[in-house]
Amino acid sequence: MTDSRQQLVAGAADMIRRRGRGATSIREVAKHSGTPLGSTYHYFPGGKHELAAEAVRYAADTVSGILAAKLRAGPVDGLQAFFALWRNVITGSDFQAGCPVLAVSIEEAPSDDPAVTVAAEAFTAWSALLAESLRQHGVDPARADHLASLVVAAAEGAVAMCRAQRTTDALDHVAAELTALISAVTDR
Amino acid sequence: MTDSRQQLVAGAADMIRRRGRGATSIREVAKHSGTPLGSTYHYFPGGKHELAAEAVRYAADTVSGILAAKLRAGPVDGLQAFFALWRNVITGSDFQAGCPVLAVSIEEAPSDDPAVTVAAEAFTAWSALLAESLRQHGVDPARADHLASLVVAAAEGAVAMCRAQRTTDALDHVAAELTALISAVTDR
Repeated sequence: MTDSRQQLVAGAADMIRRRGRGATSIREVAKHSGTPLGSTYHYFPGGKHELAAEAVRYAADTVSGILAAKLRAGPVDGLQAFFALWRNVITGSDFQAGCPVLAVSIEEAPSDDPAVTVAAEAFTAWSALLAESLRQHGVDPARADHLASLVVAAAEGAVAMCRAQRTTDALDHVAAELTALISAVTDR
Repeated sequence: MTDSRQQLVAGAADMIRRRGRGATSIREVAKHSGTPLGSTYHYFPGGKHELAAEAVRYAADTVSGILAAKLRAGPVDGLQAFFALWRNVITGSDFQAGCPVLAVSIEEAPSDDPAVTVAAEAFTAWSALLAESLRQHGVDPARADHLASLVVAAAEGAVAMCRAQRTTDALDHVAAELTALISAVTDR
């Protein structure tokens, strides 16, 4: 990917996680990324929908990469890294940024919307990484899927709670509770 | 509250839970609610921000009322009613509606935004109801707060996952896991 194209994708992901997709315009993404407006149509002939889908995929893959790496040390390490990542996004933006995958998931969209499809795949991918790690550490397969969904859902919901409440309490309390739960059900 | 005013508030809450606050205009709320546009300025001289804050409060109080009633039968009943409520919103709207409290929490807004303040209070109120019930059923006070945050965060995150994935799996799996957890830590 060229630098300009990459800057547009990263800039779009940042704007979407702050304000949602509906409030994110190609013009502002270009400005936000310091890229000429004309370049956006060169790189993304499909316009805003194409750019948004790619931005969500970029954010999703970044999170998957971190999660996969941290899970090598076990499910508790992966869980804690997942929560730390969202905590850093929140505190690093003074509670103004959250998760772009969540953001596109809750805006009205057609059922075949590309960014929402990518968001669905991202939730599935993160859950699958966590579930696989849980299974490797002795958790029954069906239970592993349920626990993995719980971790992803709780982190996503806690990010929204923290943004509204302007404290990291929800993420910190949820991480503590899930750490205890995952430690209790996995072997060492 | 007059019928027209009530219709505007309920209509705004419905639009916000479907598309977010940024994409919700006073004009469309009036149309959606079958109310003359002039009435909206009569009832809400503060405009969209006043209407949005009241819509979020209306939705939050409705959920609090249901949660408080169901918690009288114990924390597991309350938890299951909370998840059933969100499941009904999702399935009743063909995955197009979610939680208006979450929606306003993740849009860029000034730190003193009235709707976000109401959203923060809603998360706190729902968590407090659950935590009080857990304490009444033998859970240590600090743990009760953490578990209550986990339930609220996980339900909110699961709603977003279900909308993107167009299945109720995330809510169902998370509810099953939390039912087991809350059953295990509470006395009967």
